[in-house]
Amino acid sequence: MSKNDSRSFVEQIADINENFPQWYTDVVIKTQLVDYGPVKGTMVIRPYGYAIWENIQHELDKRFKATGHQNAYFPLLIPMSFFTKEAEHVEGFAPEVAVVTHAGGEELAEPLAIRPTSETIIGNMYSKWVQSYRDLPVLINQWANVMRWEKTTRPFLRTSEFLWQEGHTAHATEEEAMEETMKMLGVYKEFAENCLAIPVITGRKTEKEKFAGAEATFGMEAMMKDGKSLQAGTSHYLGQNFAKAFDIKYLDKDGALKYVYTSSWGVSTRLIGAIIMAHGDQRGLVLPPVVAPVQAVIVPIAAKKGGVMEACVALKARLESAGVRVKLDDTDNSPGWKFNEWEMRGVPVRIEVGPRDLEAGKVMIFRRDTCVKEEYPLEGVEESVQSLLAAIQRDMLEAARARRDERIVDADDVAGILRGVEGGNFVRAGWCGCRECEDKVKAETAATARVYAAENTHEKCAVCGKKAAHTIIFARAY
Amino acid sequence: MSKNDSRSFVEQIADINENFPQWYTDVVIKTQLVDYGPVKGTMVIRPYGYAIWENIQHELDKRFKATGHQNAYFPLLIPMSFFTKEAEHVEGFAPEVAVVTHAGGEELAEPLAIRPTSETIIGNMYSKWVQSYRDLPVLINQWANVMRWEKTTRPFLRTSEFLWQEGHTAHATEEEAMEETMKMLGVYKEFAENCLAIPVITGRKTEKEKFAGAEATFGMEAMMKDGKSLQAGTSHYLGQNFAKAFDIKYLDKDGALKYVYTSSWGVSTRLIGAIIMAHGDQRGLVLPPVVAPVQAVIVPIAAKKGGVMEACVALKARLESAGVRVKLDDTDNSPGWKFNEWEMRGVPVRIEVGPRDLEAGKVMIFRRDTCVKEEYPLEGVEESVQSLLAAIQRDMLEAARARRDERIVDADDVAGILRGVEGGNFVRAGWCGCRECEDKVKAETAATARVYAAENTHEKCAVCGKKAAHTIIFARAY
Repeated sequence: MSKNDSRSFVEQIADINENFPQWYTDVVIKTQLVDYGPVKGTMVIRPYGYAIWENIQHELDKRFKATGHQNAYFPLLIPMSFFTKEAEHVEGFAPEVAVVTHAGGEELAEPLAIRPTSETIIGNMYSKWVQSYRDLPVLINQWANVMRWEKTTRPFLRTSEFLWQEGHTAHATEEEAMEETMKMLGVYKEFAENCLAIPVITGRKTEKEKFAGAEATFGMEAMMKDGKSLQAGTSHYLGQNFAKAFDIKYLDKDGALKYVYTSSWGVSTRLIGAIIMAHGDQRGLVLPPVVAPVQAVIVPIAAKKGGVMEACVALKARLESAGVRVKLDDTDNSPGWKFNEWEMRGVPVRIEVGPRDLEAGKVMIFRRDTCVKEEYPLEGVEESVQSLLAAIQRDMLEAARARRDERIVDADDVAGILRGVEGGNFVRAGWCGCRECEDKVKAETAATARVYAAENTHEKCAVCGKKAAHTIIFARAY
Repeated sequence: MSKNDSRSFVEQIADINENFPQWYTDVVIKTQLVDYGPVKGTMVIRPYGYAIWENIQHELDKRFKATGHQNAYFPLLIPMSFFTKEAEHVEGFAPEVAVVTHAGGEELAEPLAIRPTSETIIGNMYSKWVQSYRDLPVLINQWANVMRWEKTTRPFLRTSEFLWQEGHTAHATEEEAMEETMKMLGVYKEFAENCLAIPVITGRKTEKEKFAGAEATFGMEAMMKDGKSLQAGTSHYLGQNFAKAFDIKYLDKDGALKYVYTSSWGVSTRLIGAIIMAHGDQRGLVLPPVVAPVQAVIVPIAAKKGGVMEACVALKARLESAGVRVKLDDTDNSPGWKFNEWEMRGVPVRIEVGPRDLEAGKVMIFRRDTCVKEEYPLEGVEESVQSLLAAIQRDMLEAARARRDERIVDADDVAGILRGVEGGNFVRAGWCGCRECEDKVKAETAATARVYAAENTHEKCAVCGKKAAHTIIFARAY
């Protein structure tokens, strides 16, 4: 029976090497992270997926507050006229907007956009709230839903509605606004690495890839197991663009009226997609302990034998007291079925408790990341589980980093970039800085400029051969 | 100067006895809980208001999880056709719905409603997820924004968009669904009393006042300082109405296919309005410690004198370690200004630290609820503050209960109900159970049937004089 069990799950998931997109879809649906909503392009985040989001929120919110930010909530509906106030912004977002034209049984005098992002409505409020230098900086974050009407959608990665946080700050000086922009990029990187176990490359985006309305966008890019890049978060230095569009001015100490400088930064439920594709394997999800809804699952073996279930219940209580998010699977499925189910759902640690184990005063513990099973004494098992969880968290980051680092290659021409990305790599190459060369790379390789590399290691533009202004990380991207 | 300070604040707030509605508006705006959004009827929840909501969320979410519920997230946009599947539901909600007709630059084939509540879209998903008795019960909650287009709006009390939680559960039997409905009503009551310090009367609603689509609605009603009632939360037993409309069926142990029974229950940012109007006074807000964003504010007196600011910083650290949400007001405003500002903002406890106090090893502590100031030794001040906060929480509930209990009166006829509600009371009266008599009370007194009283204390209907089927709590309501 348990052999049939194991096959029944694995057979349902497409081959991760042969068909990565189908593997992704199979995993997100079968593990009940998400389901398709009734309106095309929408998703329902099911409890198992939402619990990951809650853990992400908890970790990020802590960091936002520790860096002086407060949460607030701004309206969902934005007058369409607000978008036209910032020229680049309207061009970038108007085509994706969902529009409310009727409400309360009447046609509205002005159509209202469902927020695709909130710079405009928040700028409008800041212009009321900011009067003097004493009101600065304004450091506000919002947890909210946003809507961007997309043609091609995939759960977590690109859906018409998604959940995110958007930080919006206003400062007296350019330096402070830029410092904030970089600080939050740093917060995101530290969070991605230490909580999601995903190593990221941070850097500036090209003009073409920047946020509509920003002076400069900085992104963090994560490598998925298929070698493609996923933009996992962005932080924008907005200069005075929105300050001028929304008239956000303050009376400075010197008596002069000045425009503020603003920043905005966000991450979304996309991060759940990143976790799946950075760590998952043929058996399904592999969840980093910090954000795993269940960190340890207890599976009784021969549960009806004397003392087994009682020992499991006691063990569960001990682990709970130790602060471990633990589940006891006391259903009447077979142990083999349970093993496969919880492996598929990515639970970091499985504890098997059988009658012979109990007699010998030990348990078997299975690590999901390495799929290695070892014996541990029952006494002090809380400490064993805690240090295992810490080790898994650390090892998952290092494994992901190793996988990524061996897949960053260099190229000196477009053919090299193509070879690189076709081989599932990130490709470092020189770029002269012109839009034409950037477009040419995309047209010929389907790769885009992800971020400026931290160091300029290439002297010539891979496209035109002229002097390189920057070294770029090129990749195909989600 | 400090005399001027105190006047400057108080003068800005309308007289609570003369003009309660204006007092409310003054308080919510001047304390920066909320601001008006650019679209009529919308609100911006500012950081100070949102922090109260976060504390409410934290307390409720803990209770939902302890009673076995999980969070999830369902789409904002609902096909209009879903509403027509439950006849009462569409009648109740269609007139208030905001409708998306265009998205991504195109007209939509079917208009989409922004959720006013999610029974329909969640019912649609449950019909996919529920197959067998093993899938039951489904115990899901959602934290979300909802939209109901209202003609007359007031911040927190009635706005086109608001934040709330909506629990949606599905059960195998009528008994279980009813048990859930009552359990969550009990959770709300315990939360309102112990966290918000607001005593509530819970009970069944009349057919006229029930939720559109429910078999039975149970509400909790709180008395505001003007004697009006505020519906602070509702729990609905939905029977099989939505199960039949959305075809939510399960295969029972006996092999028969059966419809589930569902419940739904919700509270919203309205609760912030309840806190303001249940506890506030002429100086402004009075916040219950459990949900106050700042529980204690430290005000240095003669801050430039040696050692004062250092002592305040040290005190702040000590209180933080003790788990108190504490703020040190180190701005250069005068102490009098600070006293008035933090009193207006409802901070439960103010600690004044001056040079003479320090010499004597003591501090002055002001309680916002009673406006009494007393001396406390600096040593062990953490414990003093903690027990003061607990005492304030308890005393605020008892004070609110005493205020309310002396304003519940009885009436035997419509004139008596009118006299009662005009005097700012809840009125207990008999009701025969017919819609005509209920409508007559409303037409002649502007009071509505809030809930069935727990006990039937009146024998005759106050309107028609026939035998009373129930004793009703009548009140004017928000």
